[in-house]
Amino acid sequence: MTKKLNVAVVGAGYWGPNLARNFRSSREWDLAAVCDLDRDRAQRVSDLVGGVAVVTSLDDVLADPTIDAVAVATPAKTHHAIVLAALRAGKHVVVEKPLAPSRTEGAEMVAVAAELGLVLMTDHTYCYTPAVMKIQELIADDALGEVLFIDSVRINLGLIQPDVDVFWDLAPHDLSIIDFILPGGLAPETVSAQGADPLRTGKSCIGYLSMPIGDGAIAHVHVNWLSPTKIRQMVVGGTKRTLVWDDLNPQQRLSVYDRGVEISHESLSSAERAAASVSYRLGDTWSPALPETEALSSMATEFAHAIAEHRTPRTDGSAGLRVLSVLDAATRSLANAGTASVVHSELSALEVAS
Amino acid sequence: MTKKLNVAVVGAGYWGPNLARNFRSSREWDLAAVCDLDRDRAQRVSDLVGGVAVVTSLDDVLADPTIDAVAVATPAKTHHAIVLAALRAGKHVVVEKPLAPSRTEGAEMVAVAAELGLVLMTDHTYCYTPAVMKIQELIADDALGEVLFIDSVRINLGLIQPDVDVFWDLAPHDLSIIDFILPGGLAPETVSAQGADPLRTGKSCIGYLSMPIGDGAIAHVHVNWLSPTKIRQMVVGGTKRTLVWDDLNPQQRLSVYDRGVEISHESLSSAERAAASVSYRLGDTWSPALPETEALSSMATEFAHAIAEHRTPRTDGSAGLRVLSVLDAATRSLANAGTASVVHSELSALEVAS
Amino acid sequence: MTKKLNVAVVGAGYWGPNLARNFRSSREWDLAAVCDLDRDRAQRVSDLVGGVAVVTSLDDVLADPTIDAVAVATPAKTHHAIVLAALRAGKHVVVEKPLAPSRTEGAEMVAVAAELGLVLMTDHTYCYTPAVMKIQELIADDALGEVLFIDSVRINLGLIQPDVDVFWDLAPHDLSIIDFILPGGLAPETVSAQGADPLRTGKSCIGYLSMPIGDGAIAHVHVNWLSPTKIRQMVVGGTKRTLVWDDLNPQQRLSVYDRGVEISHESLSSAERAAASVSYRLGDTWSPALPETEALSSMATEFAHAIAEHRTPRTDGSAGLRVLSVLDAATRSLANAGTASVVHSELSALEVAS
Amino acid sequence: MTKKLNVAVVGAGYWGPNLARNFRSSREWDLAAVCDLDRDRAQRVSDLVGGVAVVTSLDDVLADPTIDAVAVATPAKTHHAIVLAALRAGKHVVVEKPLAPSRTEGAEMVAVAAELGLVLMTDHTYCYTPAVMKIQELIADDALGEVLFIDSVRINLGLIQPDVDVFWDLAPHDLSIIDFILPGGLAPETVSAQGADPLRTGKSCIGYLSMPIGDGAIAHVHVNWLSPTKIRQMVVGGTKRTLVWDDLNPQQRLSVYDRGVEISHESLSSAERAAASVSYRLGDTWSPALPETEALSSMATEFAHAIAEHRTPRTDGSAGLRVLSVLDAATRSLANAGTASVVHSELSALEVAS
Repeated sequence: MTKKLNVAVVGAGYWGPNLARNFRSSREWDLAAVCDLDRDRAQRVSDLVGGVAVVTSLDDVLADPTIDAVAVATPAKTHHAIVLAALRAGKHVVVEKPLAPSRTEGAEMVAVAAELGLVLMTDHTYCYTPAVMKIQELIADDALGEVLFIDSVRINLGLIQPDVDVFWDLAPHDLSIIDFILPGGLAPETVSAQGADPLRTGKSCIGYLSMPIGDGAIAHVHVNWLSPTKIRQMVVGGTKRTLVWDDLNPQQRLSVYDRGVEISHESLSSAERAAASVSYRLGDTWSPALPETEALSSMATEFAHAIAEHRTPRTDGSAGLRVLSVLDAATRSLANAGTASVVHSELSALEVAS
Repeated sequence: MTKKLNVAVVGAGYWGPNLARNFRSSREWDLAAVCDLDRDRAQRVSDLVGGVAVVTSLDDVLADPTIDAVAVATPAKTHHAIVLAALRAGKHVVVEKPLAPSRTEGAEMVAVAAELGLVLMTDHTYCYTPAVMKIQELIADDALGEVLFIDSVRINLGLIQPDVDVFWDLAPHDLSIIDFILPGGLAPETVSAQGADPLRTGKSCIGYLSMPIGDGAIAHVHVNWLSPTKIRQMVVGGTKRTLVWDDLNPQQRLSVYDRGVEISHESLSSAERAAASVSYRLGDTWSPALPETEALSSMATEFAHAIAEHRTPRTDGSAGLRVLSVLDAATRSLANAGTASVVHSELSALEVAS
Repeated sequence: MTKKLNVAVVGAGYWGPNLARNFRSSREWDLAAVCDLDRDRAQRVSDLVGGVAVVTSLDDVLADPTIDAVAVATPAKTHHAIVLAALRAGKHVVVEKPLAPSRTEGAEMVAVAAELGLVLMTDHTYCYTPAVMKIQELIADDALGEVLFIDSVRINLGLIQPDVDVFWDLAPHDLSIIDFILPGGLAPETVSAQGADPLRTGKSCIGYLSMPIGDGAIAHVHVNWLSPTKIRQMVVGGTKRTLVWDDLNPQQRLSVYDRGVEISHESLSSAERAAASVSYRLGDTWSPALPETEALSSMATEFAHAIAEHRTPRTDGSAGLRVLSVLDAATRSLANAGTASVVHSELSALEVAS
Repeated sequence: MTKKLNVAVVGAGYWGPNLARNFRSSREWDLAAVCDLDRDRAQRVSDLVGGVAVVTSLDDVLADPTIDAVAVATPAKTHHAIVLAALRAGKHVVVEKPLAPSRTEGAEMVAVAAELGLVLMTDHTYCYTPAVMKIQELIADDALGEVLFIDSVRINLGLIQPDVDVFWDLAPHDLSIIDFILPGGLAPETVSAQGADPLRTGKSCIGYLSMPIGDGAIAHVHVNWLSPTKIRQMVVGGTKRTLVWDDLNPQQRLSVYDRGVEISHESLSSAERAAASVSYRLGDTWSPALPETEALSSMATEFAHAIAEHRTPRTDGSAGLRVLSVLDAATRSLANAGTASVVHSELSALEVAS
């Protein structure tokens, strides 16, 4: 890559400093400006990275022809307006998750980016961690075989959010990861959600999401704000091997178990035979070494490469939209006593939006 | 207890030897006979415990007036007939789980025992382990406060059963434990079940059960035959403390966390205030010492005491029936795409049965 | 093997029943008799295995020409007399560890067995566990490279023995394992021992053993009766890979780390360069699957095969003697404030004995 | 505290930035200057904390009458000269560990500080972590009873240092902690050390330190640069309870076991009785909650308070000297094949120095 691209970070709150720091130290990017309505906040981020231009008007950023891209880290409810404005000003955009507060708005953002031939990327940071990149690679290389089930647990004592429930707060992590590692992405036909609000906070603090992921396989997500033990664990069961990702065990994050149930399908004429035809394979366990790279830095690199190569990035806008679609269906299922809700496809979403 | 009671073990298969051994070494019981249609099997169990009478006819056992009780460890589909015969012969009965293959049959067994004033007990062995007895005690003593959620995971590489799915194979453990530790027993109004059969065995090999347990609280059970990592963990979240039971960690099976989310309900007039009124309590963790007692031995003692004191035993027939009722509703939910199914109360079950 | 061998178990105390059970179920052995001065004890062991001849006189066992071998599980102080009598009666012998209460006596036993051409085996049971057999195999196959260090920890709340200190009680396990896995066996020139008796029991309850094992490598053993946490862990560091054996983690007993420090020896002309020439290799971790076999059963098989093939068994008398020699030197080091004590070779031991 | 004290950080290498950051954010301190021979390095540290005076001459710092104290983070071999100069200029001093490269130099530094009535503190950072402060408190409050043993393990893949062996690199952590938590400090009469250098680096890469700590108790330290598994664990066994500190388990760093061996000393007339008089106490385990405070910040506070209150700080120069004395004796033991070496007391050290 001969020439660096210029990026402005929009939003200097919780996540903005991390974006600024990573773009600043990137070999592909020059950090051109930090933009926030609150000049002091923007200035503090600028100081943190050794000083860059501070801007308080988004219009000024968008009007600057030297700026190639914007990284949006503002509250979710502002994403739709800011991202559309940036796209229409010809800027490539990476936007913090969730892509938008609703599937309909997200669909419009994806459509506009496609129309204008610009890169729209969702900052699904977890997908750029070495562990998740390795999981994606193992599945793509058929090391696990066909995926039979994915079980993801993300529980902790968590701050009860004022505006969103535990599904919208935590499950985007699990869903974006599942979307990233499944070869075809996350596109369940239906989703069932069970929630509980035992402290009467007005929203679910405990949540369970369940969805078929094709060929009899299932994905299940457990999110919980009320657990004093912290668990961040995902099990991916495959026909060949099963993988366990324990994100809180730095000494052995990934374990690949070369063992499983084997079943010979020929003899399935009766239940009795089915049992007889099942056997176990008890092989070795293997824990791949993982590089020590910062996820956001890899994300910034991917953003630059996608722009340079005129291609869709990993975790593009559509990935963000698929996550929104599942959350949207989960919310409907929850309102309907856990009955399976149809996940609206991107196309139908687009139709609604237009 | 001045005089020992006489018991016959009926069924000399997988579980019978354990029952025979524990009744044999009990201070409350004399093991009078081992009964099995297969004389050799019965003889082997007799040898194992140092020699007792071997009988091949159930009628002979039931006709023997010196025998006070029978312990039934035959296949589930035979429970209804054997238990009813034993009750009608005036014997007290303890029967291996599940109580019966269907809720209707179970309800009739409970009704007949009640009518005849005999003890009918379900051998929910887990409920007599030191860990579960301590959990029950902590909840009864209000050490956890009100229960907010129960999350139970029981996953392993498990033999795919010829006749039952993973719910009926594994979940009786979790459900009987939840029934035992909840002050009011397990009586959810509805149950939702999600299952998956990715290996095409003809039955669910992965299962998720979800049920409201009153006052906004939720219980969730994850059972799985296809996981190469073995997990047996239950989290019981309460308003005061939260308990984690890790059955595979003999050095620290129970951990009680004196920490949690606190919420002041006065200020719940708006969502914004709700968030503001939430705080954390980060206290100590405590792991109670547990005695080293064998569960089946405690079960045998409870059976004897219930008979002697003319009282209902812990894990009586009704407990077995409540577990059946949940499994029964789960099966209906599963057939109905996970839609919440009504759990039929014991009474209505009785009406159906009569 | 066409014909089974006949064995008598001598000693019906703590370990005798385990020997009897395993010889009884062995394909290579017929259990001919159980011998104990206390007829009732012997009878109980006989009952346990379904009935074999009960003998109260060792002479009767040794006079029986149909008996090929004896397995001795009597107190250590009786080993010398019983084993010599058995050897002189022409019986092969396997004897519980420690081989003898002193190195001198052990040396005589080894010498007599050699002279008479009989198999003398020490029952170093741990060496027949799947984990230790795999470690031995990995080292023999050069999977670890040259051994750089072995660190073994065996701590627990343990019964304070009336007659032996913590070194003689627990360290035989570690030492017999180290002897088994090191290609050349355990033959350090010196041993240093540090002990502590903070409860004033009259003997060491905490012990540390340290010994050079050639080429700059070191072995270290920590044994402790006073620790409420149970640890049984051995680390074997090699030039190629390092292995960790955690005997209390049944889900992952062995972990082989393909990582380590690398050093290029050419540039060792100065300390500064030494540091510069050191690098890390951070590779994968691998946990081999282990079969589920009972160690004592494998030991019985090895005993039979050694007799049939007229060869030295694994864990022969010399192995037992090497362990005694280290313990003997440790006791001297302990009496001498931890100063390194010379480990007497087998030969010199023999000379002393004759 | 009405007025803040002024401090200059001397040395802008590895540790200097941490000191600068913590003094900068302290309520007790004003960071007056960063001093390094290399102006660029000093400037980078100044930038990092938002800008303070950059000085390249130590003399300028010491000549500044507004500066109350200096924090020395230069290489160990320079400590003696810099600290003495600072003390003689009337400055209070905190110095990175080790206090000095030799016990003799350290003794002189302690003597000079005492003579001039200035605070000399060793930056034993670990002693200010919440875990170690809690351990110290538990022992001081007699929660553990009398200390019977301390076993400390600190192993990892570590950089082989050019100038020091593994004892001098890692053991100061363990020794300073033991010094801090033992009511009387660490003052063993002798030390035994075992080292190994299997990679032929010219210095010990694996080390074991053993020392009596009074009344039959023992402390043992295992340090190792060659272990691919990272362990940082300390067990403190007491007559009442035993504590385990696992520094790599953030969810349960400290566990206090209310269990142990009990022995009734009256009946110790014979070994047989000794065994009979031993019993176990199997009580609960307790894991105290620990505050989330940064150790260096607590250290800075303690430094300020000691100056303001004209008192000896925790981890004063004498503590640093006791650690040096043990390391010094360990080096002599190592050169003498592990024979116990006498630990020279501070007084004798002083005499040598004068």
